[in-house]
Amino acid sequence: MRLKQRIYLILDIPKPGDRLSRWFDIFLIGLIFLNVLAMIAESVEGFDYLSGTFYHWFEIVSVLIFTVEYVLRIWTCTENPRYGQTVTGRIRFLFSPMVVIDLLAILPFYLPFVCYDLRSIRAIRLFRFFRVAKVARYSKALQTLGRVITSKKAELMTTLFVLILLLVIASTFMYFAENEKQPEVFSSIPAAMWWAVATLTTVGYGDVCPITPLGKFMASIIAILGIGMFALPTGILGAGFVEEVQNSKKALKKCPYCGGDLT
Amino acid sequence: MRLKQRIYLILDIPKPGDRLSRWFDIFLIGLIFLNVLAMIAESVEGFDYLSGTFYHWFEIVSVLIFTVEYVLRIWTCTENPRYGQTVTGRIRFLFSPMVVIDLLAILPFYLPFVCYDLRSIRAIRLFRFFRVAKVARYSKALQTLGRVITSKKAELMTTLFVLILLLVIASTFMYFAENEKQPEVFSSIPAAMWWAVATLTTVGYGDVCPITPLGKFMASIIAILGIGMFALPTGILGAGFVEEVQNSKKALKKCPYCGGDLT
Amino acid sequence: MRLKQRIYLILDIPKPGDRLSRWFDIFLIGLIFLNVLAMIAESVEGFDYLSGTFYHWFEIVSVLIFTVEYVLRIWTCTENPRYGQTVTGRIRFLFSPMVVIDLLAILPFYLPFVCYDLRSIRAIRLFRFFRVAKVARYSKALQTLGRVITSKKAELMTTLFVLILLLVIASTFMYFAENEKQPEVFSSIPAAMWWAVATLTTVGYGDVCPITPLGKFMASIIAILGIGMFALPTGILGAGFVEEVQNSKKALKKCPYCGGDLT
Amino acid sequence: MRLKQRIYLILDIPKPGDRLSRWFDIFLIGLIFLNVLAMIAESVEGFDYLSGTFYHWFEIVSVLIFTVEYVLRIWTCTENPRYGQTVTGRIRFLFSPMVVIDLLAILPFYLPFVCYDLRSIRAIRLFRFFRVAKVARYSKALQTLGRVITSKKAELMTTLFVLILLLVIASTFMYFAENEKQPEVFSSIPAAMWWAVATLTTVGYGDVCPITPLGKFMASIIAILGIGMFALPTGILGAGFVEEVQNSKKALKKCPYCGGDLT
Repeated sequence: MRLKQRIYLILDIPKPGDRLSRWFDIFLIGLIFLNVLAMIAESVEGFDYLSGTFYHWFEIVSVLIFTVEYVLRIWTCTENPRYGQTVTGRIRFLFSPMVVIDLLAILPFYLPFVCYDLRSIRAIRLFRFFRVAKVARYSKALQTLGRVITSKKAELMTTLFVLILLLVIASTFMYFAENEKQPEVFSSIPAAMWWAVATLTTVGYGDVCPITPLGKFMASIIAILGIGMFALPTGILGAGFVEEVQNSKKALKKCPYCGGDLT
Repeated sequence: MRLKQRIYLILDIPKPGDRLSRWFDIFLIGLIFLNVLAMIAESVEGFDYLSGTFYHWFEIVSVLIFTVEYVLRIWTCTENPRYGQTVTGRIRFLFSPMVVIDLLAILPFYLPFVCYDLRSIRAIRLFRFFRVAKVARYSKALQTLGRVITSKKAELMTTLFVLILLLVIASTFMYFAENEKQPEVFSSIPAAMWWAVATLTTVGYGDVCPITPLGKFMASIIAILGIGMFALPTGILGAGFVEEVQNSKKALKKCPYCGGDLT
Repeated sequence: MRLKQRIYLILDIPKPGDRLSRWFDIFLIGLIFLNVLAMIAESVEGFDYLSGTFYHWFEIVSVLIFTVEYVLRIWTCTENPRYGQTVTGRIRFLFSPMVVIDLLAILPFYLPFVCYDLRSIRAIRLFRFFRVAKVARYSKALQTLGRVITSKKAELMTTLFVLILLLVIASTFMYFAENEKQPEVFSSIPAAMWWAVATLTTVGYGDVCPITPLGKFMASIIAILGIGMFALPTGILGAGFVEEVQNSKKALKKCPYCGGDLT
Repeated sequence: MRLKQRIYLILDIPKPGDRLSRWFDIFLIGLIFLNVLAMIAESVEGFDYLSGTFYHWFEIVSVLIFTVEYVLRIWTCTENPRYGQTVTGRIRFLFSPMVVIDLLAILPFYLPFVCYDLRSIRAIRLFRFFRVAKVARYSKALQTLGRVITSKKAELMTTLFVLILLLVIASTFMYFAENEKQPEVFSSIPAAMWWAVATLTTVGYGDVCPITPLGKFMASIIAILGIGMFALPTGILGAGFVEEVQNSKKALKKCPYCGGDLT
């Protein structure tokens, strides 16, 4: 029981003064970054001839470490009062977002033994990138960003809904305006949607372009509405950050750990 | 009279506890989304061979439901104190934006019996998308967005006016600068306006580009002014959302339903 | 003297209740918009064959009206206490921005009798667009925008300076990185600056693109800095609009005309 | 000692009333701008034939002036209480950012005598642009911008980290989605990253484009996330500027020079 608690504290966010826990975190982030770098290098021609040897062993060693960490985390999670029950607490812990990401980060390595379709394996391996998302645990500013985004979730989701609605309307209008003149490019509403995304997000690749006067006129209106699609989330988040600043000023009179009043 | 009032309550925004009204709303939104999906699928090659049978019947059934809803809404609108008068109230109700949208959503189906030009019908059918806009009734966050945009309407419209003014000036200058070298692309001021929209909204398709040094210099200034065309509406909406947050804090002391003081 | 004062009041921003002044303003804005429309239509093929007759007479009539308005405005300006002195007041009035714009709007018509180079005349005629800027006198929201921009002038100009600095640095670096591989496109630092503008403003036409790995790496950094070039002016203006809202709330207790305390 | 102090005051930010210090600053900024202009002109064909004579002498004279200024600044820095110690103070002064920039601005001129690789010299010469950064000392608004950016450093760096994370994830996904169909364009993850930068910053050159349906679908999600990458820093900076405005209002009761209380 003493050991279990100690491991829990090492794996958890480091308490001030707990050096081992701190070093373990730094080691883990370093390993995650090295894993990302290895995958990028593997894709570059000239670096890939190493894949049979170095990448293979690096992959095995790091997945082993991540697996041990994953198993230990599940074992010790009952130390956390929120997941105190041996069975139901653990199951809830297993399905908490961060732990699911931890699993997805090691799963691609074990799956090849199960399924034999190589192409699907390649796609699953992409989940290795979720390892990077682990870093989310460590940054305080990232938590501020997360808190602001969470507090404005409803407004942001509504903006996203308006964006999708505009995408659908814009692509339908453009399909009927341009389909006759450019049957190859605006071949269907989903095809026109690719153009609508590039326009409403103001990316504008230029691979798809209206050529009819009506199409150009409607594209202009959609491009101007695209400005609104930038202004709305920015305004919402801006107000969220202003609130956050005001709340943090008030919060200074409260304990940042327990929320109790400081005298 | 009892029945009329009951139907009015079902069609209206659901009161807490009114399960039937709630389920009716969910059913209606679902039907609207299915209609949008059907239209998108119809445009994709490989799905369109169904059009003679499935799409046809789905169209008939959903327009029938929307028509019944439309007629019932007009019949029961007098239950709403705002539209209490049997004739003048109903006429005002018929021309309220939401009800016009409801009509436009079903009109394309009935118009073929009137006019015979098939191409114009196809364009009118696009109004079916306004069915989606019905969802506007249901989201609270959408109302917040709407309230902020409405409160800043004057400033936003002025920004739009400045944008249009810049579009006109930019396209005229570019027309005189580039017309001689690229008579095909910058053939007229409206043609140059297509370029100006792509630049001021920072979309930048790249199908139209200045090539003379003077044209490039002016295009640079216009592109930089395009930043301002993003910053102005964003700043305006940002201030609007900050205000909204402050107002909603004050409003907590008032009843969110009736606006009366809470003690 | 009575007549002079009456004309001054008609030409000035309409006082509440002064119907003639109001109608004169509406007539003038209408005429300005018609002038802009005429110039756009003139550039479109198919509309230009009218130029010998209709456009010519419309031009003569509108310039005549604008000239009469300009002369009357100069004559009556001494009614304004700010320009009270017959000579020095009038000279200061002549050089106030709005009055210079009024002059530039009619000048192109009279200049052909002076200089005979037709191409330069065409360029000068563009100043006719400044007629539109006259509208600036009429909108209240435009004044709000103007006030916010003015109050943040120093910060915005500094952002512009940072943008120009980044443009110069970016184009120099790209010139040295890409000139060897693409001597045609990145032929000089000013040529590279055209690319830098398109990137920092996130327009991205795609007519000029880095192809070397070093060029692409630097272009990526510049494109990310381009986000900052959007965020800075937007944040500045956002704070300006928040201030404006707070000031206007305080100002409600003061007279909006004279600034005096209302009891 | 009197002379040393006088030179220190001339080189430092000018005190009110110190005319010589003011004129020295204006002269220095002018010289820096002329240096930048000379380098741009040198790259333009038709202007470069002067390089043997005019540019050469202008370079020598201006580097001489900058060198004298640099040496005097190091000599007199001990007048500043922060760098009071003759040796340790001077060393800290030498490594303060502004002074390092001053050195980098003159270094390229002296290095040719040391190393003989001409291509590397050309790259080092780019550091001459840091001369422009000297202007940072002079603008008050630039300091405001700097203060806001500094106060929000943690959040902005986190946003940058999220951006880089998204870049890596996006480019990996696109590499696996598009590599098979476009092996030339999406040849490796770093190559796909060039596309990801152009998309997430909404620049969208269009030289690299997804063509598979899966690639286009993922590109759409990434482009929409790109909106967030604009909204986050803008919201953060917006809140920073609002705070700055509030702080400066409170600060009005304190002396802007010394920070002491004003009665």
